[in-house]
Amino acid sequence: MNTPPTPPLSATDRSTIRRGRKRAVTERDALWSVLDAGLVCHLSTVVDGAPLVLPTGYGRAGDTMFVHGSTGALSLRTAAAGIEVCVAVTVLDGLVYARSVFHHSMNYRSAVVHGTAVAVTGADAKAEALRVITEHLTPGSWDHARPPNGRELAKTAVLSIDLAEAAVKIRAGGPGDDPDDVAADTAWAGHVPLALTRGTPVPAADLPGTWSVPGHVATGQSGSGPVTGSRR
Amino acid sequence: MNTPPTPPLSATDRSTIRRGRKRAVTERDALWSVLDAGLVCHLSTVVDGAPLVLPTGYGRAGDTMFVHGSTGALSLRTAAAGIEVCVAVTVLDGLVYARSVFHHSMNYRSAVVHGTAVAVTGADAKAEALRVITEHLTPGSWDHARPPNGRELAKTAVLSIDLAEAAVKIRAGGPGDDPDDVAADTAWAGHVPLALTRGTPVPAADLPGTWSVPGHVATGQSGSGPVTGSRR
Repeated sequence: MNTPPTPPLSATDRSTIRRGRKRAVTERDALWSVLDAGLVCHLSTVVDGAPLVLPTGYGRAGDTMFVHGSTGALSLRTAAAGIEVCVAVTVLDGLVYARSVFHHSMNYRSAVVHGTAVAVTGADAKAEALRVITEHLTPGSWDHARPPNGRELAKTAVLSIDLAEAAVKIRAGGPGDDPDDVAADTAWAGHVPLALTRGTPVPAADLPGTWSVPGHVATGQSGSGPVTGSRR
Repeated sequence: MNTPPTPPLSATDRSTIRRGRKRAVTERDALWSVLDAGLVCHLSTVVDGAPLVLPTGYGRAGDTMFVHGSTGALSLRTAAAGIEVCVAVTVLDGLVYARSVFHHSMNYRSAVVHGTAVAVTGADAKAEALRVITEHLTPGSWDHARPPNGRELAKTAVLSIDLAEAAVKIRAGGPGDDPDDVAADTAWAGHVPLALTRGTPVPAADLPGTWSVPGHVATGQSGSGPVTGSRR
């Protein structure tokens, strides 16, 4: 079967980067990479004419982003009808110290997606979307933990957002100082990398002491050690 | 001089937490603490009726939040006229692994501020706002690096947002599993702390080798070592 050619990310007026064009990356691969690297997205909607932005977990499958939340949460209840959203995923990679305050900056990977959020309905589709979100945030948990039952699926709202319109911006490396400031040499210049790091797993207070930490929890990656967990 | 009593954070309809009320913290101290712990905010506005959210740096001074950006950036150019914004600051503290997929969660500190963004004008006020933002992101840099000149101040847009209306949500600790799942004991449960950590400073390629890393860069805190930098 022939598959249709993959269309490029659209560059509509609002998703065209107006400044820092050299930091704009229009390829789909870059968008996927940013979305896969982040953990939390910021989902914005318009409610009664006013802006609202809330953080929430998400996951990606192909050109679809799934956003998760309780049916009671304001943003998701609003968006369930199929409304316009803007979603940002930002990965902070570093702080840039320049010779001038003006050229101080941050290193980051940023994706801003414009789209219509549509509620995922049907137990199978909803479960699959939840699997995508779960495996994005806590890889390995879908196979390790008890899957959602019908009651839990009914209580959970999942939205899907098409990734057709998006803008990706990436900044990396050191400062771009003015030549005069470089020549003056009166301040340190460079950057400090930042990374979100995992600490030591903390077992729940009511977890029997017979459990050891499963590989997917220890590493944050599925397929790391027994997926089904292990006991000593 | 008597100071007026500090009003509590407002609890308007839109900033009242509808779910997870036990996680809502209404005190001003909690709001300040979240804003001081974050580095990047997500600023949302309504543009031509559509939501727009963008990441940007910020700082806080008392009950005022300053948001920084070039005058060319879409969101800030729009907001300079004094428009309604919603700003989220989210600090991700951990991933919560439950016995059920349904009770998987994240530990976080979240602040969502509703307000009107007003452009900061006047060289002195703008410089002070930039000092607040700079010292929030890169403490010590304001005294170490060259301060902004008139041309740079003119090219920089700074918005101020009053912190009167805000909602703070905090989740910490392990999972809240169902008793049946605890009794079944078929999956690991607990949480994995997450923290944004600073790596080793990377000097700019054109920085003379005579520089050592100033204390404020090495530690991320002002007053750490010579504020004016040091050379070997």
